[in-house]
Amino acid sequence: MAEEAQRRRGRGGGGAARRAARSAVSFETARFIERNIPNFEVLTEEALEIIETNAETVLEEIGVNFVENPAALARWRAAGADVEGERVRIPRGLARQLCKTAPATYTQHARNPDRTVQVGGKSLVLAPVYGPPFVRDATAGRRYATMEDFRKFVKLGYMSKWLHHSGGTVCEPTDLPVNKRHLDMLHAHMTLSDKPFMGSVTEPSRAQDSVEMCEVLFGKEFVQQNTVMTSLININSPMTFDDVMMGSLEVYARNNQACIISPFIVGGAMAPVSVAGTLTQVMAECLAGIAYSQLIRAGAPVVMGAFVTSIDMNSGAPTFGTPEAAHITYGAGQLARRMGLPYRSAGSFCGSKLPDAQAAYETSNSLNMGLLSGVNFMLHSCGWLEGGLVSSFEKFVMDADQLGTLHHLAQGVSMDESAQALDAIREVGPGGHYLGCAHTQEHFKTAFWKSDLLDYKPFETWEDEGARDTQALASLRVEKMLGDYQQPPLDPAIDEALTDFIVRKKAQEPDSFM
Amino acid sequence: MAEEAQRRRGRGGGGAARRAARSAVSFETARFIERNIPNFEVLTEEALEIIETNAETVLEEIGVNFVENPAALARWRAAGADVEGERVRIPRGLARQLCKTAPATYTQHARNPDRTVQVGGKSLVLAPVYGPPFVRDATAGRRYATMEDFRKFVKLGYMSKWLHHSGGTVCEPTDLPVNKRHLDMLHAHMTLSDKPFMGSVTEPSRAQDSVEMCEVLFGKEFVQQNTVMTSLININSPMTFDDVMMGSLEVYARNNQACIISPFIVGGAMAPVSVAGTLTQVMAECLAGIAYSQLIRAGAPVVMGAFVTSIDMNSGAPTFGTPEAAHITYGAGQLARRMGLPYRSAGSFCGSKLPDAQAAYETSNSLNMGLLSGVNFMLHSCGWLEGGLVSSFEKFVMDADQLGTLHHLAQGVSMDESAQALDAIREVGPGGHYLGCAHTQEHFKTAFWKSDLLDYKPFETWEDEGARDTQALASLRVEKMLGDYQQPPLDPAIDEALTDFIVRKKAQEPDSFM
Repeated sequence: MAEEAQRRRGRGGGGAARRAARSAVSFETARFIERNIPNFEVLTEEALEIIETNAETVLEEIGVNFVENPAALARWRAAGADVEGERVRIPRGLARQLCKTAPATYTQHARNPDRTVQVGGKSLVLAPVYGPPFVRDATAGRRYATMEDFRKFVKLGYMSKWLHHSGGTVCEPTDLPVNKRHLDMLHAHMTLSDKPFMGSVTEPSRAQDSVEMCEVLFGKEFVQQNTVMTSLININSPMTFDDVMMGSLEVYARNNQACIISPFIVGGAMAPVSVAGTLTQVMAECLAGIAYSQLIRAGAPVVMGAFVTSIDMNSGAPTFGTPEAAHITYGAGQLARRMGLPYRSAGSFCGSKLPDAQAAYETSNSLNMGLLSGVNFMLHSCGWLEGGLVSSFEKFVMDADQLGTLHHLAQGVSMDESAQALDAIREVGPGGHYLGCAHTQEHFKTAFWKSDLLDYKPFETWEDEGARDTQALASLRVEKMLGDYQQPPLDPAIDEALTDFIVRKKAQEPDSFM
Repeated sequence: MAEEAQRRRGRGGGGAARRAARSAVSFETARFIERNIPNFEVLTEEALEIIETNAETVLEEIGVNFVENPAALARWRAAGADVEGERVRIPRGLARQLCKTAPATYTQHARNPDRTVQVGGKSLVLAPVYGPPFVRDATAGRRYATMEDFRKFVKLGYMSKWLHHSGGTVCEPTDLPVNKRHLDMLHAHMTLSDKPFMGSVTEPSRAQDSVEMCEVLFGKEFVQQNTVMTSLININSPMTFDDVMMGSLEVYARNNQACIISPFIVGGAMAPVSVAGTLTQVMAECLAGIAYSQLIRAGAPVVMGAFVTSIDMNSGAPTFGTPEAAHITYGAGQLARRMGLPYRSAGSFCGSKLPDAQAAYETSNSLNMGLLSGVNFMLHSCGWLEGGLVSSFEKFVMDADQLGTLHHLAQGVSMDESAQALDAIREVGPGGHYLGCAHTQEHFKTAFWKSDLLDYKPFETWEDEGARDTQALASLRVEKMLGDYQQPPLDPAIDEALTDFIVRKKAQEPDSFM
């Protein structure tokens, strides 16, 4: 079936695909960000060396655990590590040496080549929120997420101009069996959007299913020769690599598919309360995880990740958009660049229960720091609410709008003769105004970034229209976008092959909600 | 009267002052920020040189207007400028040469020496919103500001931990005569707070009143030898210096009092639509204004200012927290540092009508960029709403809380042995947690910045408590702060002398509301 689909797909697709393409509405998507501004660096050369040295000490003296994974232990032993039970102690320099085969940048292909992204170097790829079991909107409030919610988020992501990536678990479809929902989630990304996406990591077999579905979508040979997924492999900080995540990593690395290898840290709980201590642990964990990916397949694409936030020591609640999280994010970016690896961090993080001012303060703090810290892949860049428990429809479109500011900031400052505008200053002179001058007429359409959502109206107009706050404007936008949505064209044979694959897979085992 | 007050004040104040001091509650105020992090720089050396060269071209070939101010024209002529009507053309290099006598940093004294601030170098002094004719709160909505509102904002500023400066026109008390309200505003700053403050600039005579009231408060000799006010002198961009603002500048400079000399620019209206063009005009205007301050008194303290934002070209509305404003703010910081002058820019800018998510996105964008661009004096750092038309009570305390993040960000990353936390990582090991370890116990109280306002509670608790959004939490905080307010002690003789001064001044002319 997969082969047939691949054959039918060919160059330019079949007649049905061409018909679909002719009638489809195209939604504009910005090219991934290529920074033309410097990175912000908080750590000195000396500080970076201390952290790197300490990270090697952690690996050599304390070590990391690879849990319930005898094959991993055997691989480490063969590579020269000291293995004792499940503890792997890695001689100084070995992990860093192994990491050297990981590429500095890679290309993740989308089924629409215009949506293909580069990850690494000066690029920044923006992907939506990942993982929340709940959703919220202004009308129905907070509730468990369903597959229907999931599809809506994929549609919103597809239509969001500043979002380059469709993401993965945009919310957890809790109405579907745990052991089968990955099939429906992937199907939604593959068919409702044409942007790049992420694979399943909740079981190695589901990672394998993800690879096979990609083989149906892209063709088997294409998948083996190209990266078509970037998936999220969390490290159980401190210093624990579990068999589920490592098993999924093994599947992806073997198939040349990219993984973000990412400590998941709430500072003070899973890492020391200090920035330098947390960075040391992040560095050690990333070294071990990335080295392991290269033991599976040298050259497999990986992203050095850091999901790090602080904690409210009174309540134990994770806190977001905090200065300590910023320090760690800036510092981890410096460490990743010294490794020559793509870097994942930051996002639309907030602890707020509502898409209110708290949510926006915390989110903006994190988005801005993400851009300036040199992040190459930003998961959770829109839609995150309530510490990641909730995917918010309104916040999704609010954040997605703000992502436009990152695109324009990253462009840097043009210094060409027209931008210098000496003629305009001469034309207008002291006491004049620039609204009608030739330079303004020529450039006003592109000169300033403009929100598609926020309120710029005069007070009286705004009041007459109902004195709406941002959440109310966002609700209207969500409704309008979902109403305007049109599915991107896909060869019906591929669509059918995907459905067949899913039906077959679902029939192979009973539903499980555990 | 002033002399008597000064005499009575002496060292340690009189008995009444001592009694007041004993019974007063002290509200904690953080020391002004001293950056231990680098500045973010978007312009290359070459770009900076182009802008500086073009700015000199503007001054030499186009020139600036000094309006209705024959004395200013005479001063410029004497200094070597080419004066034609009110147009002043400044030979290349002359303005920059004149600026060299302006100090790189200065001290602004507060009546409470603990609140005295340094402006310049690595410091960042935070002052509240300035100028709105309206106020808003959640209960009474939007309305013209009164003197009672003004007093409330001064009280909130006094009690705000992260705010170093009491500011100036925290809102415009529209219920008082235009020609007398400056007296009541200054009296409020002097008596309801002990933080440093700003003087009046709406008429040169009112600047003179400000100086004289400071002589009552601080003693005449102290004022002549020290800077006790930093006041805001706007340039009427493009390239126009009006007699009211210049007259006020003349009073302050002559009395060794500091002025922020600041183009007021909505890009596309008062300056070119391009970043490089706007920076060129900002540089030219600051060079001319600062040079003029030094013609009045060489060595008078000044701050190079840039109030710059973008415009929505559809509606003509100013827009805030935009990427173009960020580029200009970063660039102007670089230009100010090359001038060796303190720098003023950024603030809690937003266009939103409500203290909602839009307000917070835009504000955070601006506050973060303000810190990283090397701003030394940030006016409008809290309370700004609706493009500066409104001072918002809720947003004042919301922003003032966020200013804490800037303090912690600016501290940079500690790399001492304790911060490296290797012993903690060793103690906890793979799979453990840090919540109870010795390192966490020792450091948890100070490790992470913590909001005094935002919601960190579990969802269920938050819901039980009324599912409040940030504005609702802020309303409660405003109410509580105003309830808890206690006036800082002041020698009753000084208080009486200030009142006498005001009564005498008010009797000298009829009320005017024009």
